[in-house]
Amino acid sequence: MNCAIILAGGRGTRFWPLSRQLEPKQFLNIYSKRTMLEETINRLGSLVKRQNIYIATNKLQIKKITKCLKKLDISGRNLLLEPEVKNTFAPIAVLSWKISNEYPDAVIAVLPSDNFVKDKKKFRALLSRAIKIAGQGYLVTLGIPPDKPETGYGYIKRGKKYKDFYLAQKFIEKPGLSRARKFIKEKSYYWNNGIFIFRPAVILREIKRLLPRAYSVITRMQNKKDIERLWFKLPSVSFDYAIMERAKKRAVLPADYGWSDLGSWHALGSVMKKDRNGNIFRGNCVDLGSKNSFVWSDKRVVATLGLDNLVVVDTKDALLVCPKDRAQDVKKLVEILKRRNFKKQL
Amino acid sequence: MNCAIILAGGRGTRFWPLSRQLEPKQFLNIYSKRTMLEETINRLGSLVKRQNIYIATNKLQIKKITKCLKKLDISGRNLLLEPEVKNTFAPIAVLSWKISNEYPDAVIAVLPSDNFVKDKKKFRALLSRAIKIAGQGYLVTLGIPPDKPETGYGYIKRGKKYKDFYLAQKFIEKPGLSRARKFIKEKSYYWNNGIFIFRPAVILREIKRLLPRAYSVITRMQNKKDIERLWFKLPSVSFDYAIMERAKKRAVLPADYGWSDLGSWHALGSVMKKDRNGNIFRGNCVDLGSKNSFVWSDKRVVATLGLDNLVVVDTKDALLVCPKDRAQDVKKLVEILKRRNFKKQL
Repeated sequence: MNCAIILAGGRGTRFWPLSRQLEPKQFLNIYSKRTMLEETINRLGSLVKRQNIYIATNKLQIKKITKCLKKLDISGRNLLLEPEVKNTFAPIAVLSWKISNEYPDAVIAVLPSDNFVKDKKKFRALLSRAIKIAGQGYLVTLGIPPDKPETGYGYIKRGKKYKDFYLAQKFIEKPGLSRARKFIKEKSYYWNNGIFIFRPAVILREIKRLLPRAYSVITRMQNKKDIERLWFKLPSVSFDYAIMERAKKRAVLPADYGWSDLGSWHALGSVMKKDRNGNIFRGNCVDLGSKNSFVWSDKRVVATLGLDNLVVVDTKDALLVCPKDRAQDVKKLVEILKRRNFKKQL
Repeated sequence: MNCAIILAGGRGTRFWPLSRQLEPKQFLNIYSKRTMLEETINRLGSLVKRQNIYIATNKLQIKKITKCLKKLDISGRNLLLEPEVKNTFAPIAVLSWKISNEYPDAVIAVLPSDNFVKDKKKFRALLSRAIKIAGQGYLVTLGIPPDKPETGYGYIKRGKKYKDFYLAQKFIEKPGLSRARKFIKEKSYYWNNGIFIFRPAVILREIKRLLPRAYSVITRMQNKKDIERLWFKLPSVSFDYAIMERAKKRAVLPADYGWSDLGSWHALGSVMKKDRNGNIFRGNCVDLGSKNSFVWSDKRVVATLGLDNLVVVDTKDALLVCPKDRAQDVKKLVEILKRRNFKKQL
């Protein structure tokens, strides 16, 4: 029996001004007619039943997530409303504990709620294989073959080949550029895309071994009230750092299904269809001679002229203009907006 | 006695999306708290009394101009509402005829309504000198010493020096680049900034000589009804082309008062105060590391990041983004908007 834990608590500040505190990326229909969270769930197909899908998000998102659960026919019982934002370890651990009580023999797939997958069939085939491997007691990850020395992702070094997968030899946090370049050259490294597949017993054993205090907190949680009461005792740390870097019996499956974390407007541009000048125009756009640009209009007329490699995102109350190669710094802009007290726009 | 004819019928499409058909440049407060038309009139100081200021504009602008006349304490009697847009000859000729009947001994200064003047005192001193020279029967122009081979302006070649001014030897329409470069090199050419100073009798004599049919139409105009009825018989031609290129006794006064026709967003940027990175931000702007850029926000938050030499103009219902050196092509964008039937935004 397969279960899924969907992590939908992200802030998505990198898609500002479209994404906001109350409307983060996973709740937007950025590249399709469905929200990214819906896409993530639909993508599972028949691999995981709706009643076995668990979603973690934070309290700020209650309205959005309620609407979403209804649409997706997922029970409110399967929702973890994090009382406080705490990185990925806490929600994965708490929901794994919950699942272990309900379905001790399940295999759990942990999935981010805001990634792009090009080849859904391939994705399901891989996930299905990963579930089988996890059933044998492995902590399985899907390793994305890197195509550039990205410094924004963690890496997984593969070890010995074992049947149809590799043992994962090492988990590396976001490296510097020269180290990332070395990884690319060596060809035995993958990007860590934040998908983990495991049996609840396996993960709880590792939590007990690696974070015994967190384990004792988690195993005292019997209901929503307990979670509310004890949540603040859990560490705010990533699942990668807390568990994957030090766990035993880790596996990595090379995963070439066309993945993107859609981490910036630039990344979004790379998965959308371009015109013959390399532009993407969405909405009420009028252009004269631009190239390789990304122009997003909510409602108003956006007129562009001779742009090159630029991102323009126009929403009701805020506008963003920046070169594509600076799109990842939108986070910094949002910080400035915060400091300057632009509440409405955050 | 001095009179002024202010030409306020321009469309100003180059300041789209701020300027519109119903709100052209001369009615906007682009670089100060007053509209450019008000600036033009205030700039005259005590040289021309309000009761002697005549304004020509077109019927579309009736609301705007009525409000403006009231604020400036100018009588509606002094307004020429052109029944049909007809370039500059017709309004200048018709108002000169009107003035010649009311004040036959006046000197008339014709002024565009949307130019920028840096040194107003110097401007008034020059205009005062020009009025004296015009009193002696000359058609006087103010020649702007060119600082680049601009192909968007007409040029005036100076001739013999005569007392404190030059005879104007030749008026040249917008030249090609290589010709403009030659003009700059020769140092005896000026930009024609569209200011003309003359006695009504002098100009009417030239109209009679050069455009006898137009003369006979104009001299039949005794009231607003006549103008309404006969206007369509006048040629749609520029005053430069119809009169100045072929007139006798033309003078040019070198005029270094800091002039700009503010013909584009780029030109506007060059007369406004910049920050230390060469940027101009107006309105609700938040920036991170841009340089040499011009960002204009009406109301909404405009967030910019790492821009270089870019123009961003944000208004209620339309947005413009283009590189500075393409700002003069905004006219072309407006044409596209017209063809695509964006009525509200024009």
